[in-house]
Amino acid sequence: MHSFSDLSAQFNQQFSAKQFPDTPANLYQATDYFLQIGGKRIRPVLCLLGNELFEPIKADAWSAATAIELFHNFTLIHDDIMDKAPLRRGMQTVHTRYGDNTALLAGDVMMIQAYHWLNKVNANYLPSLLQLFNRTATEVCEGQQLDMDFESRQEVQLDEYLHMIKLKTSVLLACALQMGALIGGAGQRNQELIYSFGLQLGLAFQVQDDYLDAFGDPQKFGKQTGGDILANKKTFLLIHALASVSPTEKQELQTLLASTAADKVERVLKIYKNSGVDQWALSLKQQLLDKALDNLEQIAVLSARKEPLRELAAYLIQREV
Amino acid sequence: MHSFSDLSAQFNQQFSAKQFPDTPANLYQATDYFLQIGGKRIRPVLCLLGNELFEPIKADAWSAATAIELFHNFTLIHDDIMDKAPLRRGMQTVHTRYGDNTALLAGDVMMIQAYHWLNKVNANYLPSLLQLFNRTATEVCEGQQLDMDFESRQEVQLDEYLHMIKLKTSVLLACALQMGALIGGAGQRNQELIYSFGLQLGLAFQVQDDYLDAFGDPQKFGKQTGGDILANKKTFLLIHALASVSPTEKQELQTLLASTAADKVERVLKIYKNSGVDQWALSLKQQLLDKALDNLEQIAVLSARKEPLRELAAYLIQREV
Repeated sequence: MHSFSDLSAQFNQQFSAKQFPDTPANLYQATDYFLQIGGKRIRPVLCLLGNELFEPIKADAWSAATAIELFHNFTLIHDDIMDKAPLRRGMQTVHTRYGDNTALLAGDVMMIQAYHWLNKVNANYLPSLLQLFNRTATEVCEGQQLDMDFESRQEVQLDEYLHMIKLKTSVLLACALQMGALIGGAGQRNQELIYSFGLQLGLAFQVQDDYLDAFGDPQKFGKQTGGDILANKKTFLLIHALASVSPTEKQELQTLLASTAADKVERVLKIYKNSGVDQWALSLKQQLLDKALDNLEQIAVLSARKEPLRELAAYLIQREV
Repeated sequence: MHSFSDLSAQFNQQFSAKQFPDTPANLYQATDYFLQIGGKRIRPVLCLLGNELFEPIKADAWSAATAIELFHNFTLIHDDIMDKAPLRRGMQTVHTRYGDNTALLAGDVMMIQAYHWLNKVNANYLPSLLQLFNRTATEVCEGQQLDMDFESRQEVQLDEYLHMIKLKTSVLLACALQMGALIGGAGQRNQELIYSFGLQLGLAFQVQDDYLDAFGDPQKFGKQTGGDILANKKTFLLIHALASVSPTEKQELQTLLASTAADKVERVLKIYKNSGVDQWALSLKQQLLDKALDNLEQIAVLSARKEPLRELAAYLIQREV
């Protein structure tokens, strides 16, 4: 049994091997650049941990993990184009450095490379794996479209936002875990449970992310808080606040959203606190985490085998609050 | 045995069934719009004909044909974004109608949908099929990158241009044929021969396309000639002319490339004709077609079974000149 950090280090070592050929140089310097920026490699490690829940980690799980990470990087490159984001992990985004066209193509070949790695797994479960992966990949694109749709809408309901986050973020975490389990020979019920664990964990993670952006300690969070508020970004906090505060506070909130007042962040946070939005978010996060862990507990393997996944959940969800 | 037009009609009927769900509407109205624009469906029919060369057409060949056509449409949507093309087949391109971001995502889900269809084929040859498809898909992206690279270069050698066209256009035709053959149980040698037939046919088709843009009958060609010349596009004709005309003509050609003179097309065509570039192109096309047909003849099946592919080659290459 391995810890998240063990597997993350091992994965990073394997993943740092060259993924692409040298030419056309203008295309592959863009893919290589983005891959060496790094990242937490959460998704591939979830695949490995999902596999190790059922058996010692198979070579096929490493291939699937690589596919998942390549797919994730494809989504980041294309999302950054769509969001016109200048930076990612503190580095220039691919389109900023190499232009939109090459970034678009770099994303495309990275997605194809994900399928190249998927195709290395045992043909016995290749069709099931592909089916899960294709469905998930489509959902991730749908989530990105909904996210863009929501930007131009005045109000978004909580259940719509949950659905969008589920598609954009959670399903890939869930898919990574299930792929590992599937390769590990898990039965249908166990696969569903680990998928559901990943889904709830992903939602809890996003609630936390939204919470930390407003109320986190900048020292621990690693970036200035209030960014979402300044950008009028729809978050769990804003959506719940608009739906639950008093008419007077709602009016004030809407006025603040339209303003560029110097004390905008401070005043929005005050409304959030007055109306208990902060406590609501912490409680929602806990509920989602409890649901996730409940699914994990129901998986029919020895409880001790679940320890790395419990630790990972704690690491992802409870740090730095 | 079926003709191209039979299979094209049958394919179009099957392919007109809904490929995508209804929501998110902003994403799937873009994919649906582009698919209903239509097209000649050459690639899927090549897959079906490649299959029928060896056996009556299997359901799996229809799935692979659908995958190929979806992949082709993905490349068109993304290429149009990169080329900032306003029109495709006389209709608005996806990004013109729905914006760059949605077009980017529409391309992405269309590529994933191609893999969804590939995954319907018999698991026995799914890995071989995926391997061929992944390699081809990567090459098509590489071809697009080279095409963009060449735009900003002063001179491009004929072998470089041939290589680019091979990747950007020919490999997908060749892959479509080989996928059909593979599903039809063709051996390795026959698969290589049909692949090579497609490769040469694709090159011949591009030579013809470049030729017709300069010397075609606008009535038959369906568009005004001289478009490539006005756009200073690198073509078989221009590349060969720059490499073969006299120093004086080369100087004149380069001056013309930099100019916007009203008689630019006329004067470039005069140089082409004076130096025999038109005849050279026709002869190159014939050589490539002969090579293609030679590969077809070598395939170890009854000659009569090859008739639809011979007819298709004649239809693609010899019409409207």
